Amino acid sequence: MNTYLECLPCFLSQALRAARITTDDELKIRETLDEIGMMIRDIPFESSPPETGRIIYRRIREITGDPDPYLQIKKESTRQALLLYPALKSRVENSDDRLLTAIKIAIAGNIIDYGIYRRIDIIKDVEEALERDFALCDYSIFKKRLNEASEILFLGDNAGECVFDSVLIEELHKPVTYAVRGTPIINDATCEDALHAGIDRVARILSSGTDAPGTVLSTCSEEFMEIYGNSRFIISKGQGNYEALSSEKRPISFLFKAKCSVVAEKIGVNEGDIVLI
Amino acid sequence: MNTYLECLPCFLSQALRAARITTDDELKIRETLDEIGMMIRDIPFESSPPETGRIIYRRIREITGDPDPYLQIKKESTRQALLLYPALKSRVENSDDRLLTAIKIAIAGNIIDYGIYRRIDIIKDVEEALERDFALCDYSIFKKRLNEASEILFLGDNAGECVFDSVLIEELHKPVTYAVRGTPIINDATCEDALHAGIDRVARILSSGTDAPGTVLSTCSEEFMEIYGNSRFIISKGQGNYEALSSEKRPISFLFKAKCSVVAEKIGVNEGDIVLI
Repeated sequence: MNTYLECLPCFLSQALRAARITTDDELKIRETLDEIGMMIRDIPFESSPPETGRIIYRRIREITGDPDPYLQIKKESTRQALLLYPALKSRVENSDDRLLTAIKIAIAGNIIDYGIYRRIDIIKDVEEALERDFALCDYSIFKKRLNEASEILFLGDNAGECVFDSVLIEELHKPVTYAVRGTPIINDATCEDALHAGIDRVARILSSGTDAPGTVLSTCSEEFMEIYGNSRFIISKGQGNYEALSSEKRPISFLFKAKCSVVAEKIGVNEGDIVLI
Repeated sequence: MNTYLECLPCFLSQALRAARITTDDELKIRETLDEIGMMIRDIPFESSPPETGRIIYRRIREITGDPDPYLQIKKESTRQALLLYPALKSRVENSDDRLLTAIKIAIAGNIIDYGIYRRIDIIKDVEEALERDFALCDYSIFKKRLNEASEILFLGDNAGECVFDSVLIEELHKPVTYAVRGTPIINDATCEDALHAGIDRVARILSSGTDAPGTVLSTCSEEFMEIYGNSRFIISKGQGNYEALSSEKRPISFLFKAKCSVVAEKIGVNEGDIVLI
């Protein structure tokens, strides 16, 4: 997916949010915004938003001097998600369609990302997400691919979300490779975050090698690219991975919440809708 | 009111919105955003948002070549507001407190500004606004000032809103000078817009001389400044006028909807709340 005009102000808003999390120094934050403002003209439309995000967040790290500003937020969201794990498991146990319920749980985890900014609502937001219907749901394709695949590549997204993904992985009953970012970027899951969430119990954890907030293939490791190239079924979590891979001709099922108007419009749903496509 | 960090991404969003209204040429819009991005670093915190808005919208006009991109939108919102006028008047007639009802109608007009982007909802939005309670309402100060003043300076805001203001002016029963922007800026009312709305029936229309989206005093005409300096009661409509005049020590009653988190936080209300302060 290309960068849209609407992405440009959004990058500046993201820079403000990231800088605020890193520092209380208003002048440092101001410097960050001034620099990102200057970078706007260098953003090519042909790049996907995560490709640009990669460059912008790198610059923010350079200015603020903090390589992983979201570290504490990631730990806290994993801790909170782990507290919910037993309730999520029993929801699967008591459902008519365990796989579909587990898919819904995995997408509910994509909402915790948003919930981080309003901690008190995490439980409520997840509960709401679980009650919500998919705006688009290619479930039969998902099941067909799952049946035919001997193993699965699962592209993770945010840190707390990994816990929810583990519930889905347990219902796949196939060997799973769980790919995470190579270095910290926003609150996206790295190897360490996946370990904290206990993903190693249910899957093999693999760094994609990227430092982008999405699986930008040109920045991934050779090891990851070989697995990616050979995969007969890829489950991709989150909007960042969708933005990076939407034009790929691979058997990918994208599972995400449409978090901005640009993506929502592109796939024909409302902002905030959840989809499996 | 100073410029806040949150204002910087907002300026870029406003530039995108304004450029989109002016042209369909994506490259022209892109050029606008690139330029405004470069200007971010030159925005002083000490300037009020309308002072900065003035410079930014001027640059947008230069790039796009359109001196009044909101012309049609302004005409249309005035037309729609005039259709509502009889219903608004009868609402005043049938109310227990005619003045308070007229104040609520004037603030409902401030919502039409937002309604422009979703035309179909104008009637519904106005209706909702009329049912809404003020988050802050210094009504007794307003009444006291009104009683004591021999004439009133009324600072107008948006084009369609003028019609709603005329309903309030008719309940003031004092001579009113209605100040408008000196040149077109966003969809703010100019002399021409005030005339279309029929303000000349109820008040003397005066250009403040400013080309900012708020009454930035340093950009106002001598004639306006003399009236402003001598006024014993000033009614200021809209957030832009509040941003420009909030630190003034004059008898100003501000009537507006808090349209962003920065202003809402500053005055201690929720975003979207309506206030009379």
